[in-house]
Amino acid sequence: MRTSQLLEQLMDSLRCLPGVGPKSAQRMAYHLLQRNRQGGLALAQALSTAMTDIGHCSQCRTFTEQDVCAICDNPKRQETGLICVVESPADISAVEATGQYAGRYFVLMGHLSPLDGIGPADIGLDVLEKRLQHEPIQELILATNPTVEGEATAQYIAELCQEHQVGASRIAHGVPMGGELELVDGTTLSHSIIGRQQLKYR
Amino acid sequence: MRTSQLLEQLMDSLRCLPGVGPKSAQRMAYHLLQRNRQGGLALAQALSTAMTDIGHCSQCRTFTEQDVCAICDNPKRQETGLICVVESPADISAVEATGQYAGRYFVLMGHLSPLDGIGPADIGLDVLEKRLQHEPIQELILATNPTVEGEATAQYIAELCQEHQVGASRIAHGVPMGGELELVDGTTLSHSIIGRQQLKYR
Ligand SMILES: [Zn+2]
Ligand SMILES: [Zn+2]
Repeated sequence: MRTSQLLEQLMDSLRCLPGVGPKSAQRMAYHLLQRNRQGGLALAQALSTAMTDIGHCSQCRTFTEQDVCAICDNPKRQETGLICVVESPADISAVEATGQYAGRYFVLMGHLSPLDGIGPADIGLDVLEKRLQHEPIQELILATNPTVEGEATAQYIAELCQEHQVGASRIAHGVPMGGELELVDGTTLSHSIIGRQQLKYR
Repeated sequence: MRTSQLLEQLMDSLRCLPGVGPKSAQRMAYHLLQRNRQGGLALAQALSTAMTDIGHCSQCRTFTEQDVCAICDNPKRQETGLICVVESPADISAVEATGQYAGRYFVLMGHLSPLDGIGPADIGLDVLEKRLQHEPIQELILATNPTVEGEATAQYIAELCQEHQVGASRIAHGVPMGGELELVDGTTLSHSIIGRQQLKYR
């Protein structure tokens, strides 16, 4: 028998968070109600604003509430002539945390996956191709995940670079195969950026 | 370098949830933004309403948005003459899940802890004493946690019962000592309710 419908709704809603099952949801709800209602209200406000106002950077496609994100908007980042291509916004945080990279990014928000109907336009490669045509880009660092799909996506983008005569490199496979970029430790990721290999075109 | 202030705020706010560190907060924020914005908005709404509208039942002190909760308000529950005294609202869920109990509850929202300055009135024992005086109660089942503080609190309430000539019992120690009631499996908890022992007064 329930003593509070609002409490049940809160527990249900908390389960939209990844890794939160019924037991965790219950602990979270009771914790907030008993010990931190102000924190709960602040979280409600932060969620509501973020879900409504955060869109994608028109240049790199990462999450931002502005038209162009702070990284793309930074002239020093532009001067490097480097663009690091990653699968997700979380990968930007991982690369930034290494301190080994000072260029810009391009976020695919996924990878090519023909079987799921995800083609080049679905991961923004039309936008990327326009940038290859119109911007002075020296090199694209392909930092997609070292998975089958990530490798195929990197290969596809390398061929785009070749067409537009822009250099392309792949981060070194210090990153364990089959893993997810955002979970790799900083040292391994640093080595993989420093030891990146020029791609041989087929 | 941050690409979104709202995203940073969201990650910070998520850390008010128990068991959520920086890595989990990041995964949660990206998950909602990428895959479930509607879920994120629903969670914001549920949090906001719950934190604002949920108070305590005037009879049993559990969480509810009504003056009297659905359990206290149920005449069949009243007819049993039983009140199960627990430390937290989560313990009500645990006892309800056993299906072994059809009476009412009283939630202490803690336990006696003289060193922390938590005395009888802080855990609602003034309210409970009025109920012992004015309601036809047959028996109080003392289901506080099997910890030092829980045992001391049960003993204190047993003495209140003796003063007011109301029966008192303690749930059987099938529950492992030093544990938390809400984490115990249903079978163990069922046995502990069925095998409850009449208290001997000092
Ligand atoms: Zn950008
Ligand atoms: Zn109640």
